Amino acid sequence: MPRQVDHEERRRVIAEAVCALADERGLEGVTVRDVADRAQISMGAVQRCFRTKEEMLVFALAHVGERIAERVRARLVRTPAQSAATALGHAASEVALLDEQHRAEARVWLAFVAQAVVSAPLAETLRAGYAPLEDAFARLIEEGAARGTGEPAGEDAPLDARREARTVLALADGLTVHVLAGHLTPQEAGDILHVQLARLWAGRQPPPA
Amino acid sequence: MPRQVDHEERRRVIAEAVCALADERGLEGVTVRDVADRAQISMGAVQRCFRTKEEMLVFALAHVGERIAERVRARLVRTPAQSAATALGHAASEVALLDEQHRAEARVWLAFVAQAVVSAPLAETLRAGYAPLEDAFARLIEEGAARGTGEPAGEDAPLDARREARTVLALADGLTVHVLAGHLTPQEAGDILHVQLARLWAGRQPPPA
Repeated sequence: MPRQVDHEERRRVIAEAVCALADERGLEGVTVRDVADRAQISMGAVQRCFRTKEEMLVFALAHVGERIAERVRARLVRTPAQSAATALGHAASEVALLDEQHRAEARVWLAFVAQAVVSAPLAETLRAGYAPLEDAFARLIEEGAARGTGEPAGEDAPLDARREARTVLALADGLTVHVLAGHLTPQEAGDILHVQLARLWAGRQPPPA
Repeated sequence: MPRQVDHEERRRVIAEAVCALADERGLEGVTVRDVADRAQISMGAVQRCFRTKEEMLVFALAHVGERIAERVRARLVRTPAQSAATALGHAASEVALLDEQHRAEARVWLAFVAQAVVSAPLAETLRAGYAPLEDAFARLIEEGAARGTGEPAGEDAPLDARREARTVLALADGLTVHVLAGHLTPQEAGDILHVQLARLWAGRQPPPA
């Protein structure tokens, strides 16, 4: 007796299979057949969900991106006890995927980023993920600065919240890469991120005369 | 009449073919046959140069890494007119591969990084490339600080040249990714790198009382 298959649920199952394969061996050479085997469904079922392999990869990237974004949003929820600086620090750590339990997601993210270079729809999905993160980071930086917890620079170098947000995002992604490559430990990467953010808020001593 | 083939020259030709393919479509699904076709040599000739595909990829990564490292070293040559800060700025820009003419190398680098996550020998080659860069950056940061062009922090936050070098390297790589993904323009990325380095040297005003 055929049961009703939830189309969206099936797409999510396929996305998880893509991510599992990307984690294990990168997206190198991953075929629709590999994905069908991993998801334990037929190739025809995969093809009914996604017309092309690229469409399938775009959906899988958006799927894992949304999972990361949800964690970041949870970190951004403000409480009276949590300053903008604290919220930004937590959110940036989530973006950098430094936790051991998120290492698989980091591998998946990197596999997609590498594919995005040769796939315009994947690049578009990636950019769509960065935009709200950058906005949220910029708002926190402005808010933190306005609260006087650190207007970090003098007149000749005013705080540019947008640029600082982009710096934090790029640094977080660079750290993800360096941890994945084994150049840095997660602890070293976390320390680098922490110092970068602390400097943003704390201001700095002028150089000795 | 068979001519003498320079083994190392042939390996370089193969490495260039790997890079051309990585640039055009990533390393996804690249086969020894693809590489042989692109290098216009036989598959047997490729296999005489490299026993495995992984060995070929490792050599190709080292090859492109050495080309980037050569440019960085050229930037690090010190002249009386060039301060440590200037040398570091130039070298960091080279590492970030922001020049339009180096965009292909950036794509190749990212393809290799993604593969390195699932290939221990590639990851080892990548780390071997980062180590001397990090050392050189740390020396310049120490030197710049010692010259008094900026001991950037007070007693409670002494300059950690190693950590600052790692920060610059990770930021440069993150910016490479964000430019490749189209999230930042090369100009925006260059500006971010410039401000990060300027802050390192210039010290900062204390927050307003």
